[in-house]
Amino acid sequence: MDNTPLSFAPPRGMRDFYPEDMLFREHLFETWKMSAWRFGFLPYDACVVESLDLLRRKAGEEISEQIYAFADKSGRELALRAEMTPTLARMIAARQGSLRFPLKWYAIAQCFRYERMTRGRKREHYQWNLDIVGAQSVLAETEVIAAAASAMKELGLGPGDYRIRFNNRALLSELLKKLGIQPQHHAATFLALDKRGKIPDCEIEELLRREGLPSEAVSSALELMAITTLEEIENRLGGETPALRRIRDFQQAAEACGILDLLIFDLSVVRGLSYYTGIVFEAFDTERKFRAIFGGGRYDNLLGDIGARPMTAVGLGFGDVVIAELLREKESGPCRLQPAVTAVGYMSEQQAQLAIRIASALRRRGRNVDMRLSPEKPRNFFSYAGGGNTAEAVFIGPDEAASGILRFKDLSNGQERQMAISELLEGHPGSAGHTTGQS
Amino acid sequence: MDNTPLSFAPPRGMRDFYPEDMLFREHLFETWKMSAWRFGFLPYDACVVESLDLLRRKAGEEISEQIYAFADKSGRELALRAEMTPTLARMIAARQGSLRFPLKWYAIAQCFRYERMTRGRKREHYQWNLDIVGAQSVLAETEVIAAAASAMKELGLGPGDYRIRFNNRALLSELLKKLGIQPQHHAATFLALDKRGKIPDCEIEELLRREGLPSEAVSSALELMAITTLEEIENRLGGETPALRRIRDFQQAAEACGILDLLIFDLSVVRGLSYYTGIVFEAFDTERKFRAIFGGGRYDNLLGDIGARPMTAVGLGFGDVVIAELLREKESGPCRLQPAVTAVGYMSEQQAQLAIRIASALRRRGRNVDMRLSPEKPRNFFSYAGGGNTAEAVFIGPDEAASGILRFKDLSNGQERQMAISELLEGHPGSAGHTTGQS
Repeated sequence: MDNTPLSFAPPRGMRDFYPEDMLFREHLFETWKMSAWRFGFLPYDACVVESLDLLRRKAGEEISEQIYAFADKSGRELALRAEMTPTLARMIAARQGSLRFPLKWYAIAQCFRYERMTRGRKREHYQWNLDIVGAQSVLAETEVIAAAASAMKELGLGPGDYRIRFNNRALLSELLKKLGIQPQHHAATFLALDKRGKIPDCEIEELLRREGLPSEAVSSALELMAITTLEEIENRLGGETPALRRIRDFQQAAEACGILDLLIFDLSVVRGLSYYTGIVFEAFDTERKFRAIFGGGRYDNLLGDIGARPMTAVGLGFGDVVIAELLREKESGPCRLQPAVTAVGYMSEQQAQLAIRIASALRRRGRNVDMRLSPEKPRNFFSYAGGGNTAEAVFIGPDEAASGILRFKDLSNGQERQMAISELLEGHPGSAGHTTGQS
Repeated sequence: MDNTPLSFAPPRGMRDFYPEDMLFREHLFETWKMSAWRFGFLPYDACVVESLDLLRRKAGEEISEQIYAFADKSGRELALRAEMTPTLARMIAARQGSLRFPLKWYAIAQCFRYERMTRGRKREHYQWNLDIVGAQSVLAETEVIAAAASAMKELGLGPGDYRIRFNNRALLSELLKKLGIQPQHHAATFLALDKRGKIPDCEIEELLRREGLPSEAVSSALELMAITTLEEIENRLGGETPALRRIRDFQQAAEACGILDLLIFDLSVVRGLSYYTGIVFEAFDTERKFRAIFGGGRYDNLLGDIGARPMTAVGLGFGDVVIAELLREKESGPCRLQPAVTAVGYMSEQQAQLAIRIASALRRRGRNVDMRLSPEKPRNFFSYAGGGNTAEAVFIGPDEAASGILRFKDLSNGQERQMAISELLEGHPGSAGHTTGQS
């Protein structure tokens, strides 16, 4: 057996959640769940371990280089999922005949990417996924975005804090076609254009040339990114097109949802994943200090691509890392889910049995009780209780045992209320008195 | 690119959770969380990916053969955790100087074991972990067990449904010592004895002989397992010993907690993990049809073993698979967490904007709304709403738009209540009317 000292750090890029972090995470997850229900989404989940085949074939190229892959003991090729969408598509394909469509599902899924560790990027995160499958209407887009905006609002973030930049890949396709770029090059062009700002433009041009685009199309494609208004695009396209009409329908539905003030049209929003086909969007903090808070779009071909009956789909992913950074920036700091707890302490072994009975009776009445596990002086007990998440404290010493009266101290204001032990213990099994036998 | 058809099944031994399964899982997790809070436990978590080193060195031998291990792209040896306890010990070791002890923490952790796939065993499950670190008192044992019993009660399971069999490894040590078996052989003897019922006794004897036990000690060790009462053990040991006193303290604390009627002393309960040092326990359904529902025990050496300052500890693990099987057996079947949802439908595109505004207004008022995403006939809408988890339905057709009156249909009893659209939409941004412009 190896005897070199063990490291107590988590593996590189992975996170430990101590209670203070976990209380924030639970608050965030609760907010996500509540907003999902608010918008009529049902929960689903799958194992974080997927077949490598599914991930390799259907994820974008960039992701497949970043997959944590391994073989199990019988040689099966497995991987830790990098995103939830391929798994969702697989699960829907498996029961396509019996599920009711359109379906609205959500998941809070841990996802893994092997990335170079720069600027505090992690190799795992949790992502809230909202998907609507089987709906053609642009209402699917506004529903997922409005649900995310509702969660943002619950977290205390509004139009002053972030904006959602959107585009329509179909619009970009219409523009590329106008430039003479054939549809079979569009997917690769999108992926190359998505790298703008991350790699120099000359490298993007090189990528596009390697894809086989004519030189003049390459520079025109990059010039497109300078267009900022729908009016200018309409001029270039010579009138309203299906993709432009789609964007206007989207804006109209967004207005009815009350989320129009969050939206900004931005032709440069492309999204890195190859499977998007229509409207795509990304939410950023207004100062653009952080990476995207959430993002998503329409992917009408994925089900067909994996061999299922083709179905339209819209999805949104909202990670737990950027939102936590953003909330930490806000003066208030991240909220925490923290139910009220009553601490119960006792002076000596003589009061131990009584203290346990009191703690048990309080719990049966629905109170959260932090029972102390050894005798202690009142001063030590109240110092412990005051230093944590305790709302109320009750201490049992010889006086309480003799008088039969408990004093509950409210730690927020120091006020005490009294309660008879007999009243608390009355009529419950195992609580007949504070001696072991019958009273 | 490979073009063989993809399988839509999850990887072997891994589970998909469709909404009906997920609603049960959420109900179970909520019950676990609520019971953890009720007993004063704080949440923690860590990534399912651990360093292989930690798992290999500190888990029992049986587990280390079953670990899903792999290397990341820089050659780091990683693994999917098989249990949470080594991770807990690592996290505590990392902050031992700043944490307050005794600490009471819980986690709901996915764990992986590569097992041969027999009798519906899975390769992953979720496990509720309760741990108390830094408490010597037997109250630590009763607290974790009472918390689990509280969760069982919330799930509708009481003393008629299950019993908790307990033992004290220290007691078994005293007996083995009495047989002349040296302490250095005890851990291996425990692991061998734990296999009783799983492999033939002759194979256990062989294991013990290989460990170096004298032949007469081997058969005596197996004979011990026939002892059923504490009195008989006391006779064998020639009076009360520390391990027997510990058991009696445990029973007394259990009585005060109201869980004594769930407990059965059973000398054959040993638990497979090598790190247990004191009281160990396992809960089984009364008919013993299933594997253990939950189990755990005291492990006072683990922190010292991984190189941290030694600290006493007690833990309990409660998996999601056996409890689901058990609840499925009960006539009632497993409960599901299912908030009330209002379905909103509309007749034609003319009412789409109004329907969105109504759905948005209901959501702002805290209602969970399943907004339909395309126009449909009332008959189709109410047939959809009646077939799912919908509590209430409201349909917007030309009549409603003209009269300004909505009818909310309670799907549990068919009753309708009316509400003016203007009242619902009043005073909210983006809800000034059902046309796009100003009213």
